[in-house]
Amino acid sequence: MITLTRRYRFCAAHRLHAASLGEEENRAIYGKCNNPHGHGHNYVVDVSVEGPVDRATGRVVDLQHLDALVRALIVSRYDHRNLNTEVPELSGKVPTTEVVTEAIEQHLAKQWPAAFPAGVPRLRRVRIWETRNNQFEAVAI
Amino acid sequence: MITLTRRYRFCAAHRLHAASLGEEENRAIYGKCNNPHGHGHNYVVDVSVEGPVDRATGRVVDLQHLDALVRALIVSRYDHRNLNTEVPELSGKVPTTEVVTEAIEQHLAKQWPAAFPAGVPRLRRVRIWETRNNQFEAVAI
Amino acid sequence: MITLTRRYRFCAAHRLHAASLGEEENRAIYGKCNNPHGHGHNYVVDVSVEGPVDRATGRVVDLQHLDALVRALIVSRYDHRNLNTEVPELSGKVPTTEVVTEAIEQHLAKQWPAAFPAGVPRLRRVRIWETRNNQFEAVAI
Amino acid sequence: MITLTRRYRFCAAHRLHAASLGEEENRAIYGKCNNPHGHGHNYVVDVSVEGPVDRATGRVVDLQHLDALVRALIVSRYDHRNLNTEVPELSGKVPTTEVVTEAIEQHLAKQWPAAFPAGVPRLRRVRIWETRNNQFEAVAI
Amino acid sequence: MITLTRRYRFCAAHRLHAASLGEEENRAIYGKCNNPHGHGHNYVVDVSVEGPVDRATGRVVDLQHLDALVRALIVSRYDHRNLNTEVPELSGKVPTTEVVTEAIEQHLAKQWPAAFPAGVPRLRRVRIWETRNNQFEAVAI
Amino acid sequence: MITLTRRYRFCAAHRLHAASLGEEENRAIYGKCNNPHGHGHNYVVDVSVEGPVDRATGRVVDLQHLDALVRALIVSRYDHRNLNTEVPELSGKVPTTEVVTEAIEQHLAKQWPAAFPAGVPRLRRVRIWETRNNQFEAVAI
Repeated sequence: MITLTRRYRFCAAHRLHAASLGEEENRAIYGKCNNPHGHGHNYVVDVSVEGPVDRATGRVVDLQHLDALVRALIVSRYDHRNLNTEVPELSGKVPTTEVVTEAIEQHLAKQWPAAFPAGVPRLRRVRIWETRNNQFEAVAI
Repeated sequence: MITLTRRYRFCAAHRLHAASLGEEENRAIYGKCNNPHGHGHNYVVDVSVEGPVDRATGRVVDLQHLDALVRALIVSRYDHRNLNTEVPELSGKVPTTEVVTEAIEQHLAKQWPAAFPAGVPRLRRVRIWETRNNQFEAVAI
Repeated sequence: MITLTRRYRFCAAHRLHAASLGEEENRAIYGKCNNPHGHGHNYVVDVSVEGPVDRATGRVVDLQHLDALVRALIVSRYDHRNLNTEVPELSGKVPTTEVVTEAIEQHLAKQWPAAFPAGVPRLRRVRIWETRNNQFEAVAI
Repeated sequence: MITLTRRYRFCAAHRLHAASLGEEENRAIYGKCNNPHGHGHNYVVDVSVEGPVDRATGRVVDLQHLDALVRALIVSRYDHRNLNTEVPELSGKVPTTEVVTEAIEQHLAKQWPAAFPAGVPRLRRVRIWETRNNQFEAVAI
Repeated sequence: MITLTRRYRFCAAHRLHAASLGEEENRAIYGKCNNPHGHGHNYVVDVSVEGPVDRATGRVVDLQHLDALVRALIVSRYDHRNLNTEVPELSGKVPTTEVVTEAIEQHLAKQWPAAFPAGVPRLRRVRIWETRNNQFEAVAI
Repeated sequence: MITLTRRYRFCAAHRLHAASLGEEENRAIYGKCNNPHGHGHNYVVDVSVEGPVDRATGRVVDLQHLDALVRALIVSRYDHRNLNTEVPELSGKVPTTEVVTEAIEQHLAKQWPAAFPAGVPRLRRVRIWETRNNQFEAVAI
């Protein structure tokens, strides 16, 4: 079994503000990330898949297929977007990178069986870097 | 003479849209960067200063002084901000990284004589990374 | 469940020398790291915590709280220090990065229940880079 | 228990071409990697070992011993080589990084008992970066 | 005036061997790089251009235009290629990174006036990283 | 003309303390770097040389010769050392990275004519990274 991790990137804006909390509490919790005008990041997304090495091709996954899937489901919908208003699965949520990581893992997991009907490779993990100092990880299996 | 380059960082949102151009032209020129909802980046700013090494202290600049200056003039005013609406010197301009680099270099250059009245070190260069693939540089002297 | 990894850094001096071994054996085992005058490194410390995403705030941990804890317990006590003589939990030990990683993981683990009385997030892992080529990891749970 | 990860590097040429498949199918599967004249990469190899910290020396492994082993078994045989024609354990296989990762993990695992007769440390994982965007991992235990 | 540096990448194979020198001399000069079976690298190419900031658009260059040019002239012709046999301007030369850097700078410079007939921006510099430890630079103006 | 930049590294300990200044002034100027027990860094040294490309070999410098020179003059004398007490050219000086950069540039420049009697390549620049945020540069010509 080999785990392949493929790196994708997107640049996006967001504002951290919980609708269920008051203005002051929001400022206390999120600090400068609560700025009403928003800010943004260069996000790095590592998608890991796990499977046996195909004996004919020497591969665990067709990279063109994986790239097409992740670009269609994630990159094209998150890149150069505002995470508060433009991504349906984040609607009504606070777009922290915890929430974004969870949403991306679940969005991929839901489409995985249709994309890989043979059951290999499996989605293993989604890991997102928000800045060089902060990394978030959701394990899929 | 030694050139010291000190790295700072800020995260910000922006939208590229020229008021003097039509909607279609804006989309053609800026592509996904023209998205009305904005997007954002982790910017890296390298400030270079040049001067002789002080024989008593072995330094070309008091780093605490340089940090305080760049934080007050730049980082505190650009970090976790929207570059289209919150930074006075970018007002009415398209906040491309070319324009941001020029603005930061000029803002530092204007305050330099007051901050370093002895004339050393000199401001030498401002260099900004927008993404790992794009870097912009304004030479000060 | 999300795992968040937060990066910290400290710069420190050390000398590798085992009191229980002779001069020659020490030189044979530690090579240039046994230099009596010491040397040093820029250490990178990745602290990983694991927990559920809080539905109100979208977070697994209050980062200000985590930062305050790691800075008080680790960074302020290791940064710009001599690891042979200035860190009580390393006293009498050879400050290899194995030993430092173990000590930091145990020091954090001991204070964790008081710092996070609700039991979430859990301390998951401490990982230290000594140079770009050497990384050490202690799993907490 | 501490896991130590040590980084090695090699530069090599390869061509992806499956002997069992036709020309057209090879081009469809491997794209530009099927170029008959070959291409190449700077590979990064992370070897992870796991063991208890020796109480006398503060180490989980003698790094000189580990380096000598990995250099003899892997680096000297893969660096500045053509992976299609010069590495016996890849002979007759398509030298994708999946296959290379598997081969290196197995080659190390086979020699491990002779190299570390006391059973510590154990070989834990081999991870290879082919480019900054692609990483492959074989877990040993 | 702003200098913009844009990063491109290509992966290629090469062998260092001077036709004008004997076998033994080639081995003495190029060492393992003289291996007849070839090896390869992940090359990083930084192309720098310099010009005034356009007051309407805030840019020094249309990045889509620059990317199309560098991809057509360089990336598509060097990526996943064998530098000894597949790149006309390197024909009959030893494809050291010095020679590759010179060739790429000259190839871009020759096409520059047709690509940028207004004379702005100017080609300023080509810089190539062969490995993390080796960088080569040709100044254009 | 091509400029080649070659990267070297050393790990060292130092303490910043000016003999000509009082205890309190030293603490005010150098802060935690004045800690009497010392601290340390992983230094990265980029040595740049400039020259024409040799038409027979395709090189601007014999890398084995350059490496042997820099290792003998710099790396072997600075690596795993205490910069306050073990490097003669730093004796009596405050080992800031400004001073270290100047010392290394001058030490190389003094030996350059003997090492490269033909006058090519020329020593162009020495650049040292002390941490990821601090870089110092001495121009040789």
